[in-house]
Amino acid sequence: MAEEGKPTLQHLNNSQSQTILWLLEELEIPYHINYFERVEHRAPASLKATHPLGKSPQLITASGDRVLMERSAIAAYLIATYDGAGRFRARPGADARGDALREQELVGFGEASLNAMATVALLLTFLRRGVPFLVRPLVAAVAYMVRAGFLDAELDAQMRFLDGQLEGRQFFLGGPDPTRADFVNLFFVQMGHAAGTLDLAKYPHVNAWRERCEARPAWKRALNKGNGYSLKF
Amino acid sequence: MAEEGKPTLQHLNNSQSQTILWLLEELEIPYHINYFERVEHRAPASLKATHPLGKSPQLITASGDRVLMERSAIAAYLIATYDGAGRFRARPGADARGDALREQELVGFGEASLNAMATVALLLTFLRRGVPFLVRPLVAAVAYMVRAGFLDAELDAQMRFLDGQLEGRQFFLGGPDPTRADFVNLFFVQMGHAAGTLDLAKYPHVNAWRERCEARPAWKRALNKGNGYSLKF
Repeated sequence: MAEEGKPTLQHLNNSQSQTILWLLEELEIPYHINYFERVEHRAPASLKATHPLGKSPQLITASGDRVLMERSAIAAYLIATYDGAGRFRARPGADARGDALREQELVGFGEASLNAMATVALLLTFLRRGVPFLVRPLVAAVAYMVRAGFLDAELDAQMRFLDGQLEGRQFFLGGPDPTRADFVNLFFVQMGHAAGTLDLAKYPHVNAWRERCEARPAWKRALNKGNGYSLKF
Repeated sequence: MAEEGKPTLQHLNNSQSQTILWLLEELEIPYHINYFERVEHRAPASLKATHPLGKSPQLITASGDRVLMERSAIAAYLIATYDGAGRFRARPGADARGDALREQELVGFGEASLNAMATVALLLTFLRRGVPFLVRPLVAAVAYMVRAGFLDAELDAQMRFLDGQLEGRQFFLGGPDPTRADFVNLFFVQMGHAAGTLDLAKYPHVNAWRERCEARPAWKRALNKGNGYSLKF
């Protein structure tokens, strides 16, 4: 399954794993991919062969002795190991808007805060589409309570915050290349955009940043090397 | 609001901020607290005076020129700045079960994976209790679909994973003191336990670890210095 001397990505279609594929392409290093396909929207049981949680992405290190989980950790490992030129990390001497501590705040924000709200929003959408026709008004009523009760205002505050962070910059930390702050957050923005739970017209800097990420040659190569990246659940 | 020469915690009752208060007590450093109280379960608008997202914890650094967000980042900053003896971080030379990369995986797991499922579980509980009596069967039916459809199995897999990680150890990385892996994950376990969404009898190593954390003198001091920590929403 793994190839000696190269990291191996356990890659699932239509998932956060696409971010790691993107990073591997940005790093321009040799790597191996094992492809997995969702079964009824879920990760297949075969992903449990390499990690008990059975999620993707998983990264098998080049030596083959370690299987890493979680995008933030995998990205940190890949950048620490393979980004000798320091393109994809906070620049030494950067100020509070672009240093490693700000990167950590933005990674934490994406992983914890934005992720939680994006997950709830996706769940509501998914539920509404997934239940039998007769039950839909019931689910729609509950979804409305959640959205009006807190979710819409919360997501809007989060997106306005991100929009402010990106004003006047190409990427979150201000450099010419993405860092973990970008790698972690992009997925949630793409998911909200695809699922219709985020109206990106309201957050022009975020939307321009999303387009900028997606215009990078490495992003396009990663899409070609993957097995599909549709987030319209 | 801030005191010269000391970090200041913008602390909200019944919240994740209690973790940072615990860490400040573990570090045994002088610090200042500003207390905030939830209004109808939510963070009060006054928290927006220091950070646009208006969440807690926020940490105003000792120099007063920076307001940090997100527990994982605040904990990393406090440990990097004030833990000169290296008690609360991965030990140099540790193996793959206790090194800084494993810490990063476990922090990512807590922040992203466990957090998302714990948030959905809490939302379902909260909804059921919060809606008018007549609507409760409707909400209960939706909650059942979510729990049976994926949530219960997902949370169980996550908790079994954590239980395995803690087998035979005091704390996640194997040392005698907690690290960010413990600081980040404890809140979600406490919340699930208090809200009744996790049955900790099924995960004895996790439960023993929770009790071990809560038995630490620093945890107890932090409870006394806080303004309440009830997670029974």
